[in-house]
Amino acid sequence: MGELRIHSVLVTGANRGIGLGLVQHFLGMPTPPKWVFAGCRDPKGQRAQELQNLASKHPNLVIILLDVSNPGSIKAAAATVEKHLGGSGLTLLINNAGIAMFNNLENETLEDMIQVYTTDTIGPLLMGQVFLPLLKKAAQGNPSSALSCSKAAIVNISSSTASIASSSYWDMVQIVSSRCSKAALNMLTKCQSLGYGEHGILCVALHPGWVQTDMGRVGGHQPPVTVDSSVRGMLNVLSSLSEKDTGTFLDWEGKVLPW
Amino acid sequence: MGELRIHSVLVTGANRGIGLGLVQHFLGMPTPPKWVFAGCRDPKGQRAQELQNLASKHPNLVIILLDVSNPGSIKAAAATVEKHLGGSGLTLLINNAGIAMFNNLENETLEDMIQVYTTDTIGPLLMGQVFLPLLKKAAQGNPSSALSCSKAAIVNISSSTASIASSSYWDMVQIVSSRCSKAALNMLTKCQSLGYGEHGILCVALHPGWVQTDMGRVGGHQPPVTVDSSVRGMLNVLSSLSEKDTGTFLDWEGKVLPW
Repeated sequence: MGELRIHSVLVTGANRGIGLGLVQHFLGMPTPPKWVFAGCRDPKGQRAQELQNLASKHPNLVIILLDVSNPGSIKAAAATVEKHLGGSGLTLLINNAGIAMFNNLENETLEDMIQVYTTDTIGPLLMGQVFLPLLKKAAQGNPSSALSCSKAAIVNISSSTASIASSSYWDMVQIVSSRCSKAALNMLTKCQSLGYGEHGILCVALHPGWVQTDMGRVGGHQPPVTVDSSVRGMLNVLSSLSEKDTGTFLDWEGKVLPW
Repeated sequence: MGELRIHSVLVTGANRGIGLGLVQHFLGMPTPPKWVFAGCRDPKGQRAQELQNLASKHPNLVIILLDVSNPGSIKAAAATVEKHLGGSGLTLLINNAGIAMFNNLENETLEDMIQVYTTDTIGPLLMGQVFLPLLKKAAQGNPSSALSCSKAAIVNISSSTASIASSSYWDMVQIVSSRCSKAALNMLTKCQSLGYGEHGILCVALHPGWVQTDMGRVGGHQPPVTVDSSVRGMLNVLSSLSEKDTGTFLDWEGKVLPW
Protein backbone atom coordinates (compact mmCIF):
# COMPACT_ATOMS: atom_id res chain seq x y z
CA MET A 1 0.00 0.00 0.00
CA GLY A 2 1.00 3.60 -0.51
CA GLU A 3 0.10 6.48 1.74
CA LEU A 4 -3.36 7.89 1.10
CA ARG A 5 -2.84 11.46 -0.07
CA ILE A 6 -6.04 13.30 -0.67
CA HIS A 7 -6.79 16.96 -1.09
CA SER A 8 -10.22 16.88 0.51
CA VAL A 9 -12.69 14.46 2.02
CA LEU A 10 -16.31 14.59 3.15
CA VAL A 11 -17.50 12.05 5.73
CA THR A 12 -21.25 11.78 6.42
CA GLY A 13 -22.56 10.77 9.85
CA ALA A 14 -19.26 12.06 11.23
CA ASN A 15 -20.18 12.96 14.79
CA ARG A 16 -19.64 9.53 16.32
CA GLY A 17 -18.64 5.92 15.78
CA ILE A 18 -16.87 5.05 12.56
CA GLY A 19 -17.53 8.46 11.00
CA LEU A 20 -15.82 10.25 13.88
CA GLY A 21 -12.97 7.72 13.78
CA LEU A 22 -12.43 8.41 10.09
CA VAL A 23 -12.31 12.17 10.72
CA GLN A 24 -9.78 11.72 13.55
CA HIS A 25 -7.54 9.54 11.39
CA PHE A 26 -7.65 11.93 8.45
CA LEU A 27 -6.67 14.82 10.73
CA GLY A 28 -3.83 12.79 12.25
CA MET A 29 -2.24 11.74 8.95
CA PRO A 30 1.39 12.69 8.23
CA THR A 31 0.06 14.58 5.21
CA PRO A 32 -3.50 15.47 6.23
CA PRO A 33 -6.09 16.59 3.68
CA LYS A 34 -6.34 20.31 3.09
CA TRP A 35 -10.02 20.01 3.94
CA VAL A 36 -11.87 17.48 6.07
CA PHE A 37 -15.65 18.05 5.89
CA ALA A 38 -17.59 16.36 8.67
CA GLY A 39 -21.30 16.09 7.91
CA CYS A 40 -23.75 15.67 10.76
CA ARG A 41 -27.40 16.50 11.47
CA ASP A 42 -26.78 18.79 14.43
CA PRO A 43 -23.33 20.44 14.22
CA LYS A 44 -23.93 22.71 17.20
CA GLY A 45 -25.58 20.15 19.46
CA GLN A 46 -24.27 18.05 22.33
CA ARG A 47 -23.87 15.02 20.10
CA ALA A 48 -21.33 16.85 17.95
CA GLN A 49 -19.18 17.87 20.97
CA GLU A 50 -16.20 15.76 19.94
CA LEU A 51 -16.24 17.21 16.42
CA GLN A 52 -16.40 20.71 17.90
CA ASN A 53 -13.36 19.96 20.11
CA LEU A 54 -11.46 18.66 17.08
CA ALA A 55 -12.42 21.70 15.01
CA SER A 56 -11.03 24.05 17.64
CA LYS A 57 -7.63 22.40 17.15
CA HIS A 58 -7.71 21.68 13.42
CA PRO A 59 -8.51 24.60 11.12
CA ASN A 60 -8.79 22.17 8.17
CA LEU A 61 -11.83 20.51 9.78
CA VAL A 62 -15.18 21.98 8.73
CA ILE A 63 -18.34 20.72 10.40
CA ILE A 64 -21.22 20.75 7.93
CA LEU A 65 -24.96 20.60 8.61
CA LEU A 66 -26.08 17.57 6.61
CA ASP A 67 -29.11 15.29 6.70
CA VAL A 68 -28.61 12.78 3.88
CA SER A 69 -32.31 11.89 3.87
CA ASN A 70 -33.15 15.47 2.86
CA PRO A 71 -32.34 16.56 -0.73
CA GLY A 72 -32.43 20.25 0.25
CA SER A 73 -29.96 19.67 3.07
CA ILE A 74 -27.60 17.86 0.69
CA LYS A 75 -27.69 20.73 -1.80
CA ALA A 76 -27.03 23.30 0.91
CA ALA A 77 -24.12 21.22 2.21
CA ALA A 78 -22.64 20.98 -1.30
CA ALA A 79 -22.78 24.78 -1.64
CA THR A 80 -20.90 25.19 1.66
CA VAL A 81 -18.29 22.60 0.68
CA GLU A 82 -17.82 24.22 -2.72
CA LYS A 83 -17.25 27.62 -1.11
CA HIS A 84 -14.49 26.24 1.12
CA LEU A 85 -12.86 24.34 -1.75
CA GLY A 86 -12.57 27.61 -3.66
CA GLY A 87 -12.42 26.20 -7.18
CA SER A 88 -10.82 22.84 -6.47
CA GLY A 89 -12.67 19.52 -6.38
CA LEU A 90 -13.65 17.04 -3.66
CA THR A 91 -11.35 14.02 -3.71
CA LEU A 92 -13.21 11.61 -1.49
CA LEU A 93 -16.86 11.20 -0.50
CA ILE A 94 -17.42 8.69 2.29
CA ASN A 95 -21.11 7.82 2.66
CA ASN A 96 -20.99 6.57 6.23
CA ALA A 97 -24.28 7.90 7.66
CA GLY A 98 -26.65 5.09 8.43
CA ILE A 99 -29.37 4.11 10.84
CA ALA A 100 -30.41 0.73 12.14
CA MET A 101 -33.72 -0.64 13.32
CA PHE A 102 -33.37 -3.89 15.20
CA ASN A 103 -36.52 -5.52 13.91
CA ASN A 104 -36.83 -9.09 12.75
CA LEU A 105 -38.69 -10.70 9.87
CA GLU A 106 -41.84 -10.94 11.97
CA ASN A 107 -42.17 -7.38 13.24
CA GLU A 108 -40.44 -5.37 10.51
CA THR A 109 -42.62 -2.43 9.41
CA LEU A 110 -43.27 -0.37 6.30
CA GLU A 111 -42.24 2.80 8.13
CA ASP A 112 -38.90 1.44 9.39
CA MET A 113 -38.14 -0.14 6.02
CA ILE A 114 -38.63 3.25 4.33
CA GLN A 115 -36.70 5.18 6.97
CA VAL A 116 -33.63 2.91 6.81
CA TYR A 117 -33.71 2.77 2.99
CA THR A 118 -33.94 6.56 2.78
CA THR A 119 -30.82 7.09 4.89
CA ASP A 120 -28.76 4.03 3.95
CA THR A 121 -29.47 3.77 0.22
CA ILE A 122 -31.19 6.88 -1.16
CA GLY A 123 -28.86 9.18 0.84
CA PRO A 124 -25.72 7.83 -0.89
CA LEU A 125 -27.49 8.02 -4.28
CA LEU A 126 -28.38 11.70 -3.78
CA MET A 127 -24.97 12.51 -2.30
CA GLY A 128 -23.35 11.06 -5.42
CA GLN A 129 -25.63 13.08 -7.70
CA VAL A 130 -25.15 16.39 -5.90
CA PHE A 131 -21.41 16.07 -5.27
CA LEU A 132 -20.68 14.70 -8.77
CA PRO A 133 -19.49 18.06 -10.17
CA LEU A 134 -16.99 18.44 -7.30
CA LEU A 135 -15.79 14.83 -7.62
CA LYS A 136 -15.40 15.25 -11.40
CA LYS A 137 -13.38 18.39 -10.79
CA ALA A 138 -11.05 16.49 -8.46
CA ALA A 139 -10.62 13.73 -11.04
CA GLN A 140 -9.94 16.24 -13.83
CA GLY A 141 -7.37 18.02 -11.70
CA ASN A 142 -5.38 14.81 -11.11
CA PRO A 143 -2.67 14.02 -13.66
CA SER A 144 -3.01 10.23 -13.26
CA SER A 145 -5.36 8.54 -15.69
CA ALA A 146 -5.93 5.48 -13.47
CA LEU A 147 -8.72 5.36 -10.92
CA SER A 148 -7.68 5.68 -7.27
CA CYS A 149 -8.85 7.20 -4.00
CA SER A 150 -6.20 9.91 -4.39
CA LYS A 151 -7.83 10.98 -7.68
CA ALA A 152 -11.59 10.84 -6.87
CA ALA A 153 -13.73 8.26 -5.14
CA ILE A 154 -17.06 7.43 -3.54
CA VAL A 155 -16.82 5.03 -0.61
CA ASN A 156 -20.12 3.57 0.59
CA ILE A 157 -20.00 2.07 4.07
CA SER A 158 -21.90 -1.19 3.76
CA SER A 159 -22.00 -4.28 5.98
CA SER A 160 -21.26 -7.98 5.75
CA THR A 161 -24.91 -8.49 6.76
CA ALA A 162 -25.70 -7.12 3.27
CA SER A 163 -24.10 -10.14 1.62
CA ILE A 164 -27.04 -12.08 0.17
CA ALA A 165 -24.74 -15.05 -0.42
CA SER A 166 -23.38 -15.33 3.11
CA SER A 167 -26.30 -14.03 5.24
CA SER A 168 -23.87 -13.48 8.08
CA TYR A 169 -25.05 -13.22 11.70
CA TRP A 170 -28.67 -14.18 10.79
CA ASP A 171 -29.04 -16.15 14.03
CA MET A 172 -27.93 -13.12 16.05
CA VAL A 173 -29.61 -10.25 14.23
CA GLN A 174 -32.25 -10.43 11.53
CA ILE A 175 -32.38 -6.65 10.90
CA VAL A 176 -34.32 -7.12 7.66
CA SER A 177 -34.53 -3.38 6.96
CA SER A 178 -30.75 -3.01 7.21
CA ARG A 179 -29.96 -6.15 5.22
CA CYS A 180 -32.28 -5.08 2.39
CA SER A 181 -31.09 -1.46 2.37
CA LYS A 182 -27.40 -2.35 2.46
CA ALA A 183 -27.86 -4.98 -0.28
CA ALA A 184 -29.48 -2.17 -2.28
CA LEU A 185 -26.52 0.08 -1.36
CA ASN A 186 -24.17 -2.57 -2.76
CA MET A 187 -26.19 -2.48 -5.98
CA LEU A 188 -26.03 1.33 -5.97
CA THR A 189 -22.24 1.11 -5.57
CA LYS A 190 -22.11 -1.10 -8.65
CA CYS A 191 -24.33 1.36 -10.55
CA GLN A 192 -22.17 4.30 -9.46
CA SER A 193 -19.02 2.47 -10.57
CA LEU A 194 -20.60 1.87 -14.00
CA GLY A 195 -21.92 5.42 -14.33
CA TYR A 196 -19.06 7.41 -12.83
CA GLY A 197 -16.04 5.45 -14.05
CA GLU A 198 -15.87 7.53 -17.22
CA HIS A 199 -15.58 10.63 -15.04
CA GLY A 200 -12.52 9.19 -13.30
CA ILE A 201 -14.32 8.32 -10.07
CA LEU A 202 -13.64 5.04 -8.27
CA CYS A 203 -16.61 3.59 -6.32
CA VAL A 204 -16.45 0.89 -3.68
CA ALA A 205 -18.57 -0.64 -0.90
CA LEU A 206 -16.73 -1.28 2.37
CA HIS A 207 -17.65 -3.48 5.32
CA PRO A 208 -16.01 -1.83 8.37
CA GLY A 209 -16.08 -5.00 10.48
CA TRP A 210 -18.28 -5.59 13.49
CA VAL A 211 -17.16 -2.53 15.35
CA GLN A 212 -17.34 -1.34 18.97
CA THR A 213 -19.82 1.49 18.34
CA ASP A 214 -23.25 2.22 19.81
CA MET A 215 -24.77 0.48 16.79
CA GLY A 216 -22.46 -2.52 17.01
CA ARG A 217 -23.11 -3.01 20.73
CA VAL A 218 -26.90 -3.20 20.49
CA GLY A 219 -28.34 -6.32 22.08
CA GLY A 220 -25.57 -6.48 24.68
CA HIS A 221 -22.98 -7.82 22.22
CA GLN A 222 -19.30 -7.02 22.51
CA PRO A 223 -18.07 -6.53 18.93
CA PRO A 224 -14.55 -7.78 18.20
CA VAL A 225 -13.19 -4.80 16.21
CA THR A 226 -12.21 -1.44 17.74
CA VAL A 227 -13.09 1.76 15.88
CA ASP A 228 -9.37 2.41 15.61
CA SER A 229 -8.58 -0.97 13.95
CA SER A 230 -11.56 -0.66 11.63
CA VAL A 231 -10.63 2.84 10.48
CA ARG A 232 -6.90 2.08 10.12
CA GLY A 233 -7.82 -1.01 8.13
CA MET A 234 -10.24 0.83 5.85
CA LEU A 235 -7.79 3.69 5.16
CA ASN A 236 -5.14 1.10 4.38
CA VAL A 237 -7.55 -0.59 1.96
CA LEU A 238 -8.49 2.74 0.36
CA SER A 239 -4.84 3.60 -0.22
CA SER A 240 -4.35 0.38 -2.18
CA LEU A 241 -7.41 0.57 -4.45
CA SER A 242 -6.96 0.81 -8.19
CA GLU A 243 -8.94 0.53 -11.44
CA LYS A 244 -9.67 -3.18 -10.92
CA ASP A 245 -11.32 -2.56 -7.55
CA THR A 246 -14.05 -0.17 -8.62
CA GLY A 247 -17.53 -1.62 -8.13
CA THR A 248 -16.39 -4.23 -5.60
CA PHE A 249 -17.39 -5.07 -2.01
CA LEU A 250 -14.45 -5.32 0.38
CA ASP A 251 -13.98 -5.59 4.12
CA TRP A 252 -11.73 -3.47 6.34
CA GLU A 253 -8.91 -5.95 5.78
CA GLY A 254 -9.22 -5.80 2.00
CA LYS A 255 -10.93 -9.17 1.58
CA VAL A 256 -13.48 -9.38 -1.25
CA LEU A 257 -16.96 -10.20 0.10
CA PRO A 258 -19.55 -12.10 -1.93
CA TRP A 259 -22.59 -10.13 -3.04
CA MET B 1 -39.94 -32.19 -13.40
CA GLY B 2 -43.23 -33.37 -11.98
CA GLU B 3 -46.57 -31.69 -12.50
CA LEU B 4 -47.18 -28.75 -10.19
CA ARG B 5 -50.15 -29.73 -8.02
CA ILE B 6 -51.21 -27.01 -5.67
CA HIS B 7 -54.33 -26.51 -3.65
CA SER B 8 -54.35 -22.73 -3.84
CA VAL B 9 -52.32 -19.84 -5.17
CA LEU B 10 -52.35 -16.06 -4.80
CA VAL B 11 -50.76 -13.96 -7.55
CA THR B 12 -50.24 -10.24 -6.92
CA GLY B 13 -50.34 -7.71 -9.77
CA ALA B 14 -52.48 -10.25 -11.63
CA ASN B 15 -54.46 -8.06 -14.01
CA ARG B 16 -51.89 -7.94 -16.81
CA GLY B 17 -48.50 -9.04 -18.06
CA ILE B 18 -46.79 -11.88 -16.27
CA GLY B 19 -49.30 -11.92 -13.41
CA LEU B 20 -52.22 -12.42 -15.81
CA GLY B 21 -50.23 -15.06 -17.70
CA LEU B 22 -49.63 -16.97 -14.47
CA VAL B 23 -53.33 -16.89 -13.60
CA GLN B 24 -54.26 -18.16 -17.10
CA HIS B 25 -51.79 -21.03 -16.87
CA PHE B 26 -52.93 -22.05 -13.40
CA LEU B 27 -56.55 -22.12 -14.61
CA GLY B 28 -55.59 -24.15 -17.69
CA MET B 29 -53.66 -26.87 -15.82
CA PRO B 30 -54.78 -30.52 -16.13
CA THR B 31 -55.29 -30.44 -12.37
CA PRO B 32 -55.97 -26.78 -11.64
CA PRO B 33 -55.76 -25.36 -8.12
CA LYS B 34 -58.96 -25.37 -6.12
CA TRP B 35 -58.49 -21.63 -5.64
CA VAL B 36 -56.66 -19.09 -7.78
CA PHE B 37 -56.62 -15.69 -6.08
CA ALA B 38 -55.78 -12.81 -8.41
CA GLY B 39 -54.77 -9.67 -6.54
CA CYS B 40 -55.05 -6.31 -8.26
CA ARG B 41 -55.58 -2.68 -7.26
CA ASP B 42 -58.83 -2.14 -9.16
CA PRO B 43 -60.73 -5.44 -9.57
CA LYS B 44 -63.81 -3.75 -11.05
CA GLY B 45 -62.03 -1.35 -13.37
CA GLN B 46 -61.27 -1.47 -17.08
CA ARG B 47 -57.71 -2.65 -16.46
CA ALA B 48 -59.02 -5.84 -14.83
CA GLN B 49 -61.31 -6.68 -17.77
CA GLU B 50 -59.40 -9.82 -18.75
CA LEU B 51 -59.48 -11.11 -15.20
CA GLN B 52 -63.23 -10.45 -15.07
CA ASN B 53 -63.73 -12.42 -18.31
CA LEU B 54 -61.73 -15.32 -16.90
CA ALA B 55 -63.65 -15.25 -13.62
CA SER B 56 -66.95 -15.54 -15.48
CA LYS B 57 -65.72 -18.88 -16.89
CA HIS B 58 -63.71 -20.21 -13.94
CA PRO B 59 -65.49 -20.36 -10.58
CA ASN B 60 -62.16 -21.20 -8.89
CA LEU B 61 -60.78 -17.76 -9.80
CA VAL B 62 -61.31 -15.06 -7.17
CA ILE B 63 -60.32 -11.50 -7.96
CA ILE B 64 -59.10 -9.77 -4.82
CA LEU B 65 -58.69 -6.06 -4.12
CA LEU B 66 -55.03 -5.75 -3.17
CA ASP B 67 -52.54 -2.89 -3.04
CA VAL B 68 -49.29 -4.40 -1.76
CA SER B 69 -47.96 -0.96 -0.79
CA ASN B 70 -50.80 -0.61 1.74
CA PRO B 71 -50.64 -2.72 4.93
CA GLY B 72 -54.39 -2.30 5.53
CA SER B 73 -55.20 -3.53 2.03
CA ILE B 74 -52.99 -6.59 2.54
CA LYS B 75 -54.76 -7.47 5.79
CA ALA B 76 -58.19 -7.09 4.21
CA ALA B 77 -57.12 -9.27 1.27
CA ALA B 78 -55.86 -11.96 3.67
CA ALA B 79 -59.22 -12.00 5.45
CA THR B 80 -61.01 -12.48 2.12
CA VAL B 81 -58.63 -15.25 1.04
CA GLU B 82 -58.98 -16.99 4.40
CA LYS B 83 -62.76 -16.93 4.11
CA HIS B 84 -62.66 -18.65 0.71
CA LEU B 85 -60.12 -21.22 1.87
CA GLY B 86 -62.50 -22.24 4.64
CA GLY B 87 -59.98 -23.70 7.05
CA SER B 88 -57.32 -24.89 4.61
CA GLY B 89 -54.03 -23.10 3.92
CA LEU B 90 -52.58 -21.14 1.01
CA THR B 91 -50.06 -23.25 -0.91
CA LEU B 92 -48.36 -20.67 -3.06
CA LEU B 93 -47.85 -16.91 -2.77
CA ILE B 94 -46.45 -15.30 -5.91
CA ASN B 95 -45.26 -11.75 -5.25
CA ASN B 96 -45.40 -10.49 -8.82
CA ALA B 97 -46.70 -6.92 -8.37
CA GLY B 98 -44.05 -4.40 -9.27
CA ILE B 99 -43.64 -0.98 -10.74
CA ALA B 100 -40.83 0.52 -12.76
CA MET B 101 -39.53 4.04 -13.12
CA PHE B 102 -37.23 4.46 -16.06
CA ASN B 103 -34.85 6.90 -14.46
CA ASN B 104 -31.08 6.78 -14.71
CA LEU B 105 -28.32 7.43 -12.21
CA GLU B 106 -28.42 11.15 -12.97
CA ASN B 107 -32.13 11.89 -12.60
CA GLU B 108 -33.26 9.23 -10.12
CA THR B 109 -35.28 10.82 -7.29
CA LEU B 110 -36.01 10.21 -3.62
CA GLU B 111 -39.73 9.92 -4.35
CA ASP B 112 -39.37 7.32 -7.13
CA MET B 113 -36.82 5.35 -5.11
CA ILE B 114 -39.29 5.13 -2.20
CA GLN B 115 -42.27 4.33 -4.42
CA VAL B 116 -40.53 1.46 -6.22
CA TYR B 117 -39.03 0.08 -2.99
CA THR B 118 -42.42 0.17 -1.29
CA THR B 119 -44.10 -1.91 -3.99
CA ASP B 120 -41.21 -4.15 -5.09
CA THR B 121 -39.56 -4.91 -1.74
CA ILE B 122 -41.70 -3.87 1.22
CA GLY B 123 -44.85 -5.28 -0.42
CA PRO B 124 -43.42 -8.83 -0.59
CA LEU B 125 -42.17 -8.49 3.02
CA LEU B 126 -45.61 -7.49 4.31
CA MET B 127 -47.36 -10.11 2.14
CA GLY B 128 -45.12 -12.77 3.67
CA GLN B 129 -45.87 -11.55 7.20
CA VAL B 130 -49.64 -11.34 6.76
CA PHE B 131 -50.07 -14.56 4.77
CA LEU B 132 -47.65 -16.53 6.98
CA PRO B 133 -50.42 -18.22 9.03
CA LEU B 134 -52.13 -19.45 5.84
CA LEU B 135 -48.83 -20.63 4.32
CA LYS B 136 -47.93 -22.44 7.57
CA LYS B 137 -51.33 -24.10 7.53
CA ALA B 138 -50.72 -25.35 3.99
CA ALA B 139 -47.30 -26.70 4.99
CA GLN B 140 -48.71 -28.42 8.09
CA GLY B 141 -51.47 -30.00 6.02
CA ASN B 142 -49.00 -31.59 3.63
CA PRO B 143 -47.69 -35.05 4.55
CA SER B 144 -44.29 -34.56 2.88
CA SER B 145 -41.57 -33.27 5.16
CA ALA B 146 -39.43 -31.87 2.30
CA LEU B 147 -39.84 -28.32 1.06
CA SER B 148 -41.57 -27.91 -2.31
CA CYS B 149 -43.98 -25.60 -4.12
CA SER B 150 -46.70 -28.24 -3.70
CA LYS B 151 -46.30 -27.98 0.09
CA ALA B 152 -45.96 -24.20 0.68
CA ALA B 153 -43.90 -21.53 -1.03
CA ILE B 154 -43.25 -17.84 -1.52
CA VAL B 155 -42.10 -16.93 -5.03
CA ASN B 156 -40.74 -13.42 -5.45
CA ILE B 157 -40.61 -12.18 -9.04
CA SER B 158 -37.23 -10.51 -9.32
CA SER B 159 -35.15 -9.55 -12.36
CA SER B 160 -31.73 -10.28 -13.81
CA THR B 161 -31.12 -6.52 -13.58
CA ALA B 162 -31.05 -7.12 -9.81
CA SER B 163 -27.90 -9.20 -10.10
CA ILE B 164 -25.18 -7.02 -8.56
CA ALA B 165 -22.54 -9.32 -9.99
CA SER B 166 -23.71 -9.25 -13.60
CA SER B 167 -25.27 -5.76 -13.89
CA SER B 168 -27.11 -6.93 -16.97
CA TYR B 169 -28.47 -4.47 -19.55
CA TRP B 170 -26.79 -1.46 -17.85
CA ASP B 171 -26.04 0.14 -21.22
CA MET B 172 -29.71 -0.15 -22.21
CA VAL B 173 -31.51 0.68 -18.97
CA GLN B 174 -30.02 2.10 -15.80
CA ILE B 175 -33.29 1.95 -13.78
CA VAL B 176 -31.45 2.51 -10.51
CA SER B 177 -34.64 2.40 -8.41
CA SER B 178 -35.58 -1.02 -9.84
CA ARG B 179 -32.07 -2.47 -9.60
CA CYS B 180 -31.75 -1.38 -5.96
CA SER B 181 -35.26 -2.54 -4.98
CA LYS B 182 -34.96 -5.91 -6.71
CA ALA B 183 -31.50 -6.50 -5.20
CA ALA B 184 -33.16 -5.78 -1.85
CA LEU B 185 -35.97 -8.19 -2.83
CA ASN B 186 -33.35 -10.86 -3.47
CA MET B 187 -32.01 -10.22 0.03
CA LEU B 188 -35.55 -10.40 1.41
CA THR B 189 -36.01 -13.75 -0.36
CA LYS B 190 -32.89 -15.02 1.39
CA CYS B 191 -34.19 -13.70 4.74
CA GLN B 192 -37.59 -15.33 4.17
CA SER B 193 -35.91 -18.64 3.30
CA LEU B 194 -33.94 -18.46 6.56
CA GLY B 195 -36.92 -17.41 8.65
CA TYR B 196 -39.69 -19.50 7.11
CA GLY B 197 -37.83 -22.73 6.35
CA GLU B 198 -38.66 -24.11 9.79
CA HIS B 199 -42.35 -23.59 9.00
CA GLY B 200 -42.05 -25.75 5.88
CA ILE B 201 -42.14 -22.84 3.42
CA LEU B 202 -39.83 -22.76 0.40
CA CYS B 203 -38.78 -19.27 -0.76
CA VAL B 204 -37.24 -18.40 -4.10
CA ALA B 205 -36.53 -15.37 -6.31
CA LEU B 206 -37.35 -15.82 -10.00
CA HIS B 207 -36.23 -13.84 -13.03
CA PRO B 208 -39.06 -14.20 -15.58
CA GLY B 209 -36.87 -13.33 -18.57
CA TRP B 210 -37.07 -10.15 -20.59
CA VAL B 211 -40.73 -10.50 -21.42
CA GLN B 212 -43.08 -8.97 -24.00
CA THR B 213 -45.13 -6.94 -21.52
CA ASP B 214 -45.87 -3.21 -21.29
CA MET B 215 -42.98 -2.94 -18.83
CA GLY B 216 -40.61 -4.97 -20.97
CA ARG B 217 -41.38 -2.94 -24.11
CA VAL B 218 -40.59 0.47 -22.62
CA GLY B 219 -38.08 2.44 -24.67
CA GLY B 220 -39.20 0.84 -27.93
CA HIS B 221 -37.46 -2.46 -27.24
CA GLN B 222 -38.81 -5.79 -28.49
CA PRO B 223 -38.16 -8.27 -25.69
CA PRO B 224 -37.22 -11.81 -26.78
CA VAL B 225 -39.46 -13.83 -24.42
CA THR B 226 -43.25 -14.18 -24.80
CA VAL B 227 -45.44 -14.10 -21.69
CA ASP B 228 -46.44 -17.66 -22.52
CA SER B 229 -42.85 -18.99 -22.67
CA SER B 230 -41.90 -17.12 -19.52
CA VAL B 231 -44.85 -18.43 -17.54
CA ARG B 232 -44.53 -22.02 -18.83
CA GLY B 233 -40.84 -21.90 -17.98
CA MET B 234 -41.41 -20.54 -14.48
CA LEU B 235 -44.12 -23.09 -13.65
CA ASN B 236 -41.81 -25.83 -14.91
CA VAL B 237 -39.07 -24.49 -12.63
CA LEU B 238 -41.46 -24.24 -9.67
CA SER B 239 -42.55 -27.86 -10.14
CA SER B 240 -38.93 -29.02 -9.86
CA LEU B 241 -37.89 -27.05 -6.76
CA SER B 242 -36.84 -28.89 -3.63
CA GLU B 243 -35.17 -28.27 -0.27
CA LYS B 244 -31.81 -27.36 -1.84
CA ASP B 245 -33.36 -24.55 -3.91
CA THR B 246 -34.83 -22.47 -1.12
CA GLY B 247 -33.20 -19.05 -0.86
CA THR B 248 -31.83 -19.12 -4.42
CA PHE B 249 -32.20 -16.83 -7.44
CA LEU B 250 -33.21 -18.64 -10.63
CA ASP B 251 -34.34 -17.65 -14.09
CA TRP B 252 -37.39 -18.92 -15.99
CA GLU B 253 -35.28 -21.71 -17.44
CA GLY B 254 -34.02 -22.86 -14.05
CA LYS B 255 -30.54 -21.41 -14.36
CA VAL B 256 -29.00 -20.12 -11.11
CA LEU B 257 -28.25 -16.39 -11.35
CA PRO B 258 -25.42 -14.73 -9.42
CA TRP B 259 -26.44 -12.35 -6.65
